[in-house]
Amino acid sequence: MSTRSTKSRFVVLSGGVGGAKLALGLSKVVPARDLLIVANTGDDFTHLGLHVSPDIDTLIYTLGGVSNPATGWGRVGETGAFMEALGAIGGETWFFLGDKDLALHVERTLRLTNGESLSAVTADLARRFGVKAAIVPMSNDPVPTMVKTTRGTLAFQHYFVRERCRPRVTGFRFQNVARAKPEPRFMQALNDPKLAAVIIGPSNPFISIEPILALPRVRKRLDRVPVIAVSPIVGGQAIKGPAAKMMRELGIRASALAVAERYASFCDGFVIDEADVALAGPIAKLGLRVLIERTVMKTLDDRVRLGRAVVAFAKRLSRKGRP
Amino acid sequence: MSTRSTKSRFVVLSGGVGGAKLALGLSKVVPARDLLIVANTGDDFTHLGLHVSPDIDTLIYTLGGVSNPATGWGRVGETGAFMEALGAIGGETWFFLGDKDLALHVERTLRLTNGESLSAVTADLARRFGVKAAIVPMSNDPVPTMVKTTRGTLAFQHYFVRERCRPRVTGFRFQNVARAKPEPRFMQALNDPKLAAVIIGPSNPFISIEPILALPRVRKRLDRVPVIAVSPIVGGQAIKGPAAKMMRELGIRASALAVAERYASFCDGFVIDEADVALAGPIAKLGLRVLIERTVMKTLDDRVRLGRAVVAFAKRLSRKGRP
Repeated sequence: MSTRSTKSRFVVLSGGVGGAKLALGLSKVVPARDLLIVANTGDDFTHLGLHVSPDIDTLIYTLGGVSNPATGWGRVGETGAFMEALGAIGGETWFFLGDKDLALHVERTLRLTNGESLSAVTADLARRFGVKAAIVPMSNDPVPTMVKTTRGTLAFQHYFVRERCRPRVTGFRFQNVARAKPEPRFMQALNDPKLAAVIIGPSNPFISIEPILALPRVRKRLDRVPVIAVSPIVGGQAIKGPAAKMMRELGIRASALAVAERYASFCDGFVIDEADVALAGPIAKLGLRVLIERTVMKTLDDRVRLGRAVVAFAKRLSRKGRP
Repeated sequence: MSTRSTKSRFVVLSGGVGGAKLALGLSKVVPARDLLIVANTGDDFTHLGLHVSPDIDTLIYTLGGVSNPATGWGRVGETGAFMEALGAIGGETWFFLGDKDLALHVERTLRLTNGESLSAVTADLARRFGVKAAIVPMSNDPVPTMVKTTRGTLAFQHYFVRERCRPRVTGFRFQNVARAKPEPRFMQALNDPKLAAVIIGPSNPFISIEPILALPRVRKRLDRVPVIAVSPIVGGQAIKGPAAKMMRELGIRASALAVAERYASFCDGFVIDEADVALAGPIAKLGLRVLIERTVMKTLDDRVRLGRAVVAFAKRLSRKGRP
C-alpha cells in the first residue's frame, strides 16, 4: 500500500447494482472509517404499505456478501412463497419482494413509522449484515423520482419495473428535492478537509446520480472537491439498466463521452473502459483527466482492482490539484 | 337429509382452531347461504406494523382447506424464510408469521389503511380461498382483549404467545367493547326470522366467545333465539389452548359443567363429549338440553359428524320451542 495521504477519505455516490459493485471494491481498499457510501433514494417507494429502498438494500446485500450474483439485486438463495401467496389472493405482484428481502422492508417500515430516521435504520441494518463502511441515504426526506414519458409522468418504479422501461422518456423530476436536506453525514463528509475525492459510481446518471446532485448544496460543493466518475456506459451500452435507452430517447448519444459531457462542469477525473479507449482524447478535451481501466466488474477481483485503480487515480489528481 | 325447516339459518360464534373445525363441519351440512361464521377479533393485534387477525385467518385456512393439520393454525407447507431473516436483523420473532401467511397480513393491512372495512377484506380473502360460507369479524371496530394477570395487564398476544400463557390470570378486559358495533351481517343474522340457532363453537369461553357476547346488543339478542354451545372442555381438559388453566386460575372447576354454568343464562342446548357423560345430569339440572357426542374432532369425518349432530340438535330444540 502507498503511504497515506492526509486526504484519505472518500465519498461514493451510488445507485444500485453498478455503484454497489464499485462500493464493494472500494471497501476492500479503503479503511471503513474513511469511506462513506451515499445511496440514491429517488427509487424509494411505498409498496404494499412497506417502505422499499432498493438502492440501499442492494448496497447492504452487496457489501454484506449476500447479494444474488445472478441479478446483482436481491438476496442469494431467495424464495418467493410470500409473493406467490400474495398473487393467489389478488395482491400486486409486479414488484418482486423475496421472503428474506421482505424482512428488511417490514422492519424498516416499522421503525420509520416509530419515528426513526432512514439513516438510523440503514446504519443498523448494514451493521446487522456485517457491513463496516458507512452507508447513508442521500437524504432522510423523500425525494421520489418521477419519470416523464410520452405516455405521461410515472412514479419511478412504475416506469422501471411495472412498465419495464418501455415508455419513451422525455425527462425527470425529483419531487420535493428543493426542500429535502442532504443526509447530515453526507454533507459533513463533503466538507471534511480530509476528503480525498467524491467518486461517482458507474450508476445511471439520470435516475441514480442526478437525484443526489439535485439536493440543495451538493452540486455546489462538488465545485470545491475532487470528483471522479466511473462511466456507466461501455461501448455505447449500459452495463445494466436503461441508461443507454434513456440517453437515446433524450437525444443524447449513448456513450461514455456523453456522460463525461454531462458531468464535465464539476468532474475532474473520468474512468472509462478499455473498450472506449478512442474516447479518451475527446473526454480529455473536456478538461477531464482520463483513466482507462477494465470497468466491467464480473468478479470480486474486478471490483477490488477497479476500486484500487480509482483510489490511486484520485490520489494522483489530488496531488496535482484541480485542473 | 331431513325436510327443510323454515328456520334454516345458523350463526356460529368461533375463536380459532376448535371453532374453525366445527365451522368446517357445519359448512359441509348447512348450505353456504344459511351459514354465517362470526370470528372473534379480540385476538387481533398490530404486529410489525401489520394487522393480524388470527381467528379470521384460522377460519379462512380451515374452510379453505389449507390449514396446517399439525398445528390447527397457520398454513400447510408453510415456510419461515421471512422470520429467519427478520431475526437476523434484530426484529421481533416471538410471534411466528409464515411466508405465505404474511401475504394475508400485508394485503389486509394495506386495504384497511386504504379505508376498506375488516368485513370487506375478510369476505374477499375468504372468497380467494374458495370459502363459500360467509365469515365475518365480530366487529369492524378494534376490541382488543387485555388479560389481567398477577404480573399486570397484558395485551392478549403478549400473554398468549410471547409469555406462553404462563402468567396467572385474574380477569379479562375487552377494550373499547362498549363503543364497538357488532358487524352488520352478524346483527342482521341474529334478527333474521329464519335463524334456527346460534351455535357457540368449542372455543375458549373467556377469550374467544365472551368478547363476542360482550358487544352491545348481542348478549340480549341471545335471550330471544335458540342457542347451542359445544363444550371446549372434555374430561376436565381443554382440547387446545389455555381454557382449563384459566378456569383453575380463576377459581372455576375446569369442566364442561362449569362452562355450561357460565353459558346457562342464555343457552338452550349444550353438547358434551362422551367422556363427560356423567355431567349430563348436572347440566340438565341447569335447564339445558344435553347432547352427548364425540366432540374431539380429529378427522374431517369427525367435524362433519359433529356438525350434523349439532344441526339436528338445534332443529329438535327449535321444534320444541324454548325450554
